Amino acid sequence: MTSIPFRSGPDQAAAAERSDAARNRKRLLWAAKELISECGAGGLTMDRLAERAGVGKGTVFRRFGSRAGLMLALLHDSEVDFQSRFMFGPPPLGPGAPALERLVAFGAGRIAYVVEFGDLVLAAEDASRGRFDVPAAALWHRHIEVLLDDAGFDADSWLMAGSLGAALDPERLLDLVRRHGVAPERLVASWRDLVTRVVRPA
Amino acid sequence: MTSIPFRSGPDQAAAAERSDAARNRKRLLWAAKELISECGAGGLTMDRLAERAGVGKGTVFRRFGSRAGLMLALLHDSEVDFQSRFMFGPPPLGPGAPALERLVAFGAGRIAYVVEFGDLVLAAEDASRGRFDVPAAALWHRHIEVLLDDAGFDADSWLMAGSLGAALDPERLLDLVRRHGVAPERLVASWRDLVTRVVRPA
Repeated sequence: MTSIPFRSGPDQAAAAERSDAARNRKRLLWAAKELISECGAGGLTMDRLAERAGVGKGTVFRRFGSRAGLMLALLHDSEVDFQSRFMFGPPPLGPGAPALERLVAFGAGRIAYVVEFGDLVLAAEDASRGRFDVPAAALWHRHIEVLLDDAGFDADSWLMAGSLGAALDPERLLDLVRRHGVAPERLVASWRDLVTRVVRPA
Repeated sequence: MTSIPFRSGPDQAAAAERSDAARNRKRLLWAAKELISECGAGGLTMDRLAERAGVGKGTVFRRFGSRAGLMLALLHDSEVDFQSRFMFGPPPLGPGAPALERLVAFGAGRIAYVVEFGDLVLAAEDASRGRFDVPAAALWHRHIEVLLDDAGFDADSWLMAGSLGAALDPERLLDLVRRHGVAPERLVASWRDLVTRVVRPA
């Protein structure tokens, strides 16, 4: 079967341009992540990003508007990636593992994520209206609630999901890591301990 | 035995003045609490407070500087009161009850406190540098940690105390009560459930 394009001519050119733009965006975000992992979020400037990605500075500004816009785009990208991993990715974070193992993996994933994207996460929280309106936060909350139910938790799983989620609050995690020098592994161990105690049968 | 004052003369007058001032301060704070319980924190203005306490508006401003200063004084007063109740007051909040019962009572007390002083608590958090620098927060954290140890919790009680404390985050509790209409009793029940599961032996 030959596939017949719905539209042709100028629209094909537009589609090619969109795909170019998408590739460009990916390349810029990748370069931005590299810069952050090398120098921290403070080291990410529009100049350095343009240089690293091998594009003009004007391109970077046209694409993201400002450094804040770049930060949000980066974070959005990483959030979407994390979400797809816990919703559709391989176990134990994704479906296929027992609920308790998925809960442990979810917390471990969040901790790694917050440690990696710390300043970005905080900047995005400040930019959103309130800490509890973030759509991603609603999704995590629901995810924990469903896993609690699946693990046989027999009490108020909606509120308990919120209480457990509070332990993964990015500001709290970053405070523990940066100000108190707590190793991420210790955070993961304590999260594992917490959720294991919460779901184990009486 | 007759008590002999260390100093006399002008200092006695000063002491009387200080005691007058302290009485005045108490009366103003009491009137402010009445106004808040009647009309919410929004209903507390310097004018209304002066009228309710039967003093001049100048007195109110001299005492607290501004409405923000009044709010902080009010909160400080309530914090000190809450602290003295969980440290020295009657059980189960104070010493004398089993550690788990004290943990439950502590959460119930915090929830009631946040519901009562909601806007004040949020205002004070904004005013402080960071949510985790508040001296009171350090005290609650330590209190939960000690109670976990007393209850026989055998893992990382310092980190676990922080995770449990995060469930009592004022901003979170107020969001649940105000935006989601969760009854404080339901919050207390979920807190009881959480700490009971965390401390029960494996």
